[in-house]
Amino acid sequence: MMGPHPAVADVRRAIRASLSDLDKGSLVLAACSGGADSLALAACLGFVAPRLGLRAGLVTVDHALQPGSRSRADDLVRLAPGLGLDSYSEAVTVEVGTLGGPEAAARIARYAALDEVSARLGAVILLGHTRDDQAETVLLRLARGSGSRSLSGMAEVSGVYRRPLLGVSRTRTEEACEALGLSPWHDPHNDDPRFTRVKVRQILLPLLESELGPGIADALARTARLCRDDADALDDWADRVYAEARDLGTGLSTALLAELPAAVRRRVIHRAAVAAGSPPSALAAVHIEEAERLITSWTGQKGVDLPGGVGVVRRYGRLMFTSSLS
Amino acid sequence: MMGPHPAVADVRRAIRASLSDLDKGSLVLAACSGGADSLALAACLGFVAPRLGLRAGLVTVDHALQPGSRSRADDLVRLAPGLGLDSYSEAVTVEVGTLGGPEAAARIARYAALDEVSARLGAVILLGHTRDDQAETVLLRLARGSGSRSLSGMAEVSGVYRRPLLGVSRTRTEEACEALGLSPWHDPHNDDPRFTRVKVRQILLPLLESELGPGIADALARTARLCRDDADALDDWADRVYAEARDLGTGLSTALLAELPAAVRRRVIHRAAVAAGSPPSALAAVHIEEAERLITSWTGQKGVDLPGGVGVVRRYGRLMFTSSLS
Repeated sequence: MMGPHPAVADVRRAIRASLSDLDKGSLVLAACSGGADSLALAACLGFVAPRLGLRAGLVTVDHALQPGSRSRADDLVRLAPGLGLDSYSEAVTVEVGTLGGPEAAARIARYAALDEVSARLGAVILLGHTRDDQAETVLLRLARGSGSRSLSGMAEVSGVYRRPLLGVSRTRTEEACEALGLSPWHDPHNDDPRFTRVKVRQILLPLLESELGPGIADALARTARLCRDDADALDDWADRVYAEARDLGTGLSTALLAELPAAVRRRVIHRAAVAAGSPPSALAAVHIEEAERLITSWTGQKGVDLPGGVGVVRRYGRLMFTSSLS
Repeated sequence: MMGPHPAVADVRRAIRASLSDLDKGSLVLAACSGGADSLALAACLGFVAPRLGLRAGLVTVDHALQPGSRSRADDLVRLAPGLGLDSYSEAVTVEVGTLGGPEAAARIARYAALDEVSARLGAVILLGHTRDDQAETVLLRLARGSGSRSLSGMAEVSGVYRRPLLGVSRTRTEEACEALGLSPWHDPHNDDPRFTRVKVRQILLPLLESELGPGIADALARTARLCRDDADALDDWADRVYAEARDLGTGLSTALLAELPAAVRRRVIHRAAVAAGSPPSALAAVHIEEAERLITSWTGQKGVDLPGGVGVVRRYGRLMFTSSLS
């Protein structure tokens, strides 16, 4: 008896490892666009899920941006039972706005739809992001000047979402589709050079590979994993210090903050600022560094304004966070 | 009265900030190749040092790889007093080997010469690396798949060496030279596409800039700073855990290791492996991860061999490190 094609075996193994902690009977849905990565994901989920005692299904989001998108979505739903995804399948048509540009707007609409499906059915959602998507993400984040958390890229597990294929190359998912006799859909947006991610994929990564040697996608994905572990450990440390500091009363002790390493001190200040009402999306590194100077370069300065009407002052050996809105 | 040219003011300010902690009378030498970055460094050190009560000089390394290199080095030494570098100046000719390729061999010979000068004179050595050099370093490290420590690039302070210009662009040092009427030497090696760093500088960074938007060098240098703070904090944590674990006796407690975040656990194992005799240069992430599985995936496995004849086994709730060479 022949075993499965090696590419199929790789994708199945990755999915099995990702789902091994779920309770029997849980519902797992593959989010599937019809592209090679998510089609391989869906097909291999249909094989793996029953063997783990899980129920499996498929959900596809029709962004209604291209002619024929609804019928493609319907085709995928019809395909699902034959792939072993017989517990559920659904095509959801969404309305894509314009906020943040075409890529961001489509992403926001897609996740809103998937969130809704997950909440309604109590389902875990699998996403087909591959090692190459992870490499592209790290390169894009890097271009913004980011620390460990940001360089850690996309998470394997994030709430109801899981990304089993972050260690599998895009090519491998194409091979898996071919071995399974599946014809992936090629999204023309994936070739549109107006999209930054397409430029990273088609121009930058190949050039990095040819100039610096092979394996750049692998190296970037490894960077992401290492940075994620580093960021997790530092967040863990900052959580403990912040919890302890709060127990001691109002504000943060300047003596306690002064003896922390800078990376932890800034994370603790960030937590206090968010707790005081500063929106995380608006709170940038420069804000935290300015507040930090009340500790590291204290010359009696007045105080620092943070986004969301939050003020920080140093009084009687404590850093006090105030909200002008409350 | 006119102030100095803004570029000159930037370089001076950066040097002043870098040297502010030194005792009066300390000797500070600019390592100068004659290129724009280190020439601006040398000239501005000559201005800043006396105002901080420091003695200043210049040291130039002649790699003897190009015709005329010795006379260029001698020219720099003659230039030094006029730049205010009147406490010391020296040209050192070195013999460049072949180990590790031309770039690495030249670097090894250069640092050996600078180490010797610093030790002989008790001098701090300033290096002219700019923000752009830092960006190139981060990109090269990234291509190898690196964690926070590696992505943190070159340090501002490392032993007797300081790099005051890591926040100053290369262009800014060229402007400073021009404003001061100095003619930098252009090293033809800086255009030799056989060198990986030259490819990064001339092909990759400009392309990243044109495709992803301006400011990529700045973003990479900021990434380096943030990653350095993160790595420092984690090393600090690991040092404390390792010191505590050692006080408790032979080997490392598996219970203690199990409750640490992965990033800290791996750093502690790394310290124990090095203490047992494994050479840090040979000890890779894969080795540490294999040893870590004795904690995180314990199924009674035999043990793990590390470079340098070091073995790790798990016995009676402890991770024991043994050396076959002792």
